[in-house]
Amino acid sequence: MATVHITRRERFSAAHKLSLPDWSAEKNMAVFGKCSNPNWHGHNYELWVTVKGTPDPLTGFVVDLSELGRIVNDKIIRYVDHKNLDMDVPFMKGRLSSTENLAIAFWEQLKEPLEALGCTMHCIKIRETENNHVEYHGE
Amino acid sequence: MATVHITRRERFSAAHKLSLPDWSAEKNMAVFGKCSNPNWHGHNYELWVTVKGTPDPLTGFVVDLSELGRIVNDKIIRYVDHKNLDMDVPFMKGRLSSTENLAIAFWEQLKEPLEALGCTMHCIKIRETENNHVEYHGE
Amino acid sequence: MATVHITRRERFSAAHKLSLPDWSAEKNMAVFGKCSNPNWHGHNYELWVTVKGTPDPLTGFVVDLSELGRIVNDKIIRYVDHKNLDMDVPFMKGRLSSTENLAIAFWEQLKEPLEALGCTMHCIKIRETENNHVEYHGE
Amino acid sequence: MATVHITRRERFSAAHKLSLPDWSAEKNMAVFGKCSNPNWHGHNYELWVTVKGTPDPLTGFVVDLSELGRIVNDKIIRYVDHKNLDMDVPFMKGRLSSTENLAIAFWEQLKEPLEALGCTMHCIKIRETENNHVEYHGE
Amino acid sequence: MATVHITRRERFSAAHKLSLPDWSAEKNMAVFGKCSNPNWHGHNYELWVTVKGTPDPLTGFVVDLSELGRIVNDKIIRYVDHKNLDMDVPFMKGRLSSTENLAIAFWEQLKEPLEALGCTMHCIKIRETENNHVEYHGE
Amino acid sequence: MATVHITRRERFSAAHKLSLPDWSAEKNMAVFGKCSNPNWHGHNYELWVTVKGTPDPLTGFVVDLSELGRIVNDKIIRYVDHKNLDMDVPFMKGRLSSTENLAIAFWEQLKEPLEALGCTMHCIKIRETENNHVEYHGE
Repeated sequence: MATVHITRRERFSAAHKLSLPDWSAEKNMAVFGKCSNPNWHGHNYELWVTVKGTPDPLTGFVVDLSELGRIVNDKIIRYVDHKNLDMDVPFMKGRLSSTENLAIAFWEQLKEPLEALGCTMHCIKIRETENNHVEYHGE
Repeated sequence: MATVHITRRERFSAAHKLSLPDWSAEKNMAVFGKCSNPNWHGHNYELWVTVKGTPDPLTGFVVDLSELGRIVNDKIIRYVDHKNLDMDVPFMKGRLSSTENLAIAFWEQLKEPLEALGCTMHCIKIRETENNHVEYHGE
Repeated sequence: MATVHITRRERFSAAHKLSLPDWSAEKNMAVFGKCSNPNWHGHNYELWVTVKGTPDPLTGFVVDLSELGRIVNDKIIRYVDHKNLDMDVPFMKGRLSSTENLAIAFWEQLKEPLEALGCTMHCIKIRETENNHVEYHGE
Repeated sequence: MATVHITRRERFSAAHKLSLPDWSAEKNMAVFGKCSNPNWHGHNYELWVTVKGTPDPLTGFVVDLSELGRIVNDKIIRYVDHKNLDMDVPFMKGRLSSTENLAIAFWEQLKEPLEALGCTMHCIKIRETENNHVEYHGE
Repeated sequence: MATVHITRRERFSAAHKLSLPDWSAEKNMAVFGKCSNPNWHGHNYELWVTVKGTPDPLTGFVVDLSELGRIVNDKIIRYVDHKNLDMDVPFMKGRLSSTENLAIAFWEQLKEPLEALGCTMHCIKIRETENNHVEYHGE
Repeated sequence: MATVHITRRERFSAAHKLSLPDWSAEKNMAVFGKCSNPNWHGHNYELWVTVKGTPDPLTGFVVDLSELGRIVNDKIIRYVDHKNLDMDVPFMKGRLSSTENLAIAFWEQLKEPLEALGCTMHCIKIRETENNHVEYHGE
C-alpha cells in the first residue's frame, strides 16, 4: 500500500503589515523594520497544499485535485486574494499576519474539509518572496 | 562600434489598489474588479531596467552595473519597496497605480540620472504577477 | 502620448507530433527525430500575448486584461488545452503543429478580436520547453 | 558519519490521458475531466530523483551524479521522453498514467540499479504542471 | 505549541574545481570529469537555510529573518561570494568543494550562531545548477 | 511570407574574473569590485540564441533546432562549459570577459555557421546572474 504525497499550488496577492497596535511606531520599526510601514505593503504569495494517501486502484488518484483546488479556493483563496490580510480576513482576526501565522491559520481552515476527501493533511508551504518561505506540518 | 543592451533586475513589494475616488464602489468594481478592494492588496513587483551603449574598450562595460543599481535604488526602490504605491510615493501622486502608469513614471525618474552615466535608456519592464507584465520604451 | 506594451501569459497542455503523412517513417524520423513518434508526445506550452497602446487617462489601462484574457481563452485556450493539436484544433487543420506554425495561427485567431478592444497586436510568444520558444510579430 | 541527500533533475515531454476503457465517455469525463480527452494531451514533466548516503571521504561524493544520470536515462527517460505514456512504456502497461502511479513505477525501475551504486533511494518527485507535483518515498 | 519551519534563500557566485592533488590529471578526469578542469570553473550557487521553532506569540516570528540573514552573510556569504571555494575559504581548507561537503561545512558554520537566536537548525540546501542540489540535516 | 523568431537556450558553468593586468589591485578593485577577486569566481551562464526566418512550408521549421543546437555546442559550449573564460577560451584571448564582450564574441562565432542553415542571426542574450543579462543584435 504505497503512500504518495500530492501538492497543489495556488497563488494570491494581498496587502499586509507587521505592527502591534500597543507598540510605538519606533518599537514597531525596531522589531519589524520596513514590514511595519503604516500604509501597508503587499506580496504575491504562493501557497502549496500537500496531502498524502494511497492512490485509488482504479483512478490512480490520492485525491481528486479539482476537488482539492475547489476547497482551497473556497476556504482560503477567496478570503485572501486581492485583500488586506489584516483587515479583510475573518480567520486572521487578532493574529499578526506573519507568514508563520498564515501557515498555521491555513492548516486550521483546510484540515477538516480536505481530510473529508479521504486523504491526510501533510504540509502547508507559503512563499512570501523569492527569498523566504515557511512550512507547517500541523504540530 | 557594437551596441549592447544591458539589463538589471530589482524587486519591490508594495500595496496598491485601482479605484477612482469620483466613482462609486459599484463602478470601480465594474471597471477594476478585485483590484479595487478598498483595503488594498499588493504584489511582489519585478523591475527590469535596460540601457544600451557601446562597451568601453578597456573595461568591457556599457555601464557600471553597481552605479546603475545605486541609482535605481535611490530614485525608485527606496520610494516603493514595502510602501503603498497610492499613499507613499511622491512621483505617483495623482496617477492611478496601473502597471502601465508605474512604467512611465519609473522611466521619467530614471532617464536623466541613468543617461548621465553615459548610456541610453532603452526599456522599463515591470512584472506585477507571473501572468502579466508591461514594457515602456519612452515614447 | 506614451505607447506601452502589455503582456498576458496563458498556459495549455497538449499532445502533438511532427510528421508528414506522405513521408515514410524513416524520412519523418530523419527530419523530425523523436518529435515524429507515431503515438504522439506532448508539452506544457506557455503563451504570451502582447498588445500595445496608449494608457487610458482615467484608468491607466492600455487594455482591460480581463477582457483580453477572456478573448485568448475563447479563441485559443479552449481549443488547445488538454487537446491534441493535430486532431482536435480546427484552426490547425492541414498545418504541421511546429511552434512556428502555432504562433502564426494564434496571431490570426487573435488579431481581429483583440484589436476590437482598442489596442494593437504586437507579439505572440510560445515556449514549448524551457529550452526553446518562438515569437511572431504578424509579418 | 554525515548523511547527505542529493537530487538530480531530469525532464521529459510525453502524451497521456486518464480514462478507463471499461467506463463510458461520460463517466470518464465526470471523473477525469479534461484529462480524459480521447485524443490525448501532454506535458513537460520534471523528475527529481533523490538518493542519500555518506559522502566518500576522498571524493566528497554521495554518488557519482553522472552514473546516476546515466541510469535514470537508461531506466526511465529513454522510455518516456517524446513518447505516449499509455501506449509506448512497457513498465506502465495496465496502469493509469496518473502522476502518482508514474512516481511509484519510476521508483520500482530505479531502486535496484541506483542502490547498486552504494546509496539509498529516498524520493521520486514528479511535477506535471507548474501547479501540481507528487512525491513518493517507497512505502 | 506549533512548530514552523522557516527558510531563507541566499545566493553566491564562486569558482571551484574537483580534483585531488595526489592523483594524475587522467585519474582526476576519470573520476571528476569536466569538473576537474585545472583552470577552474564556477557556479551561481543558491543556498536555502531552514530553521524551525515555535512562533513568538507577540511577533508571530520563529526567528527574526533579518538577524538570520545577517548571520548567514557574516558566517558564509562574505567568505564564498565572488571567491574561489578551493583557495579563498578558510572553512573549506583541506576539503574537496563537492556540494555535499559545502553543505556539511555550512551547517557547521551556522548551527551555533543560528541556534543562539532561539531556534533549531533544520536543513542546509544548496543548488549548484538547475539540475542538481543537495540537502543536509546535521547527522 | 511570415517571419518568425526562434530561440534556443543553452547553459554553461564557467570561472572568470574582471581585472586588467596593467592596473594595480587597488584600481581593479575600485573599478570592478568583487568581480576582480584574483583567484576567480564563476557563474552558471544562460545563453539564448535567436535566429529568424520564414517557416518551411513543408516542415513548419525556420531552422532545424537540433542542427542549431549542434552548432552552438560546437562553436561555443564545448569551449566555455566547465572552463575558465579568461584562460581556456581561444576566442576570448585579449578581451575582458564582461558579459557584454562575451555576447559580441559569441555572435562572431555563430553568425556564419548559423546563417549557413538558411536563417538570419537576430540576437545573443546572456544571463550571468538572475539579476543581470545582456543582449547583442550584431551592430
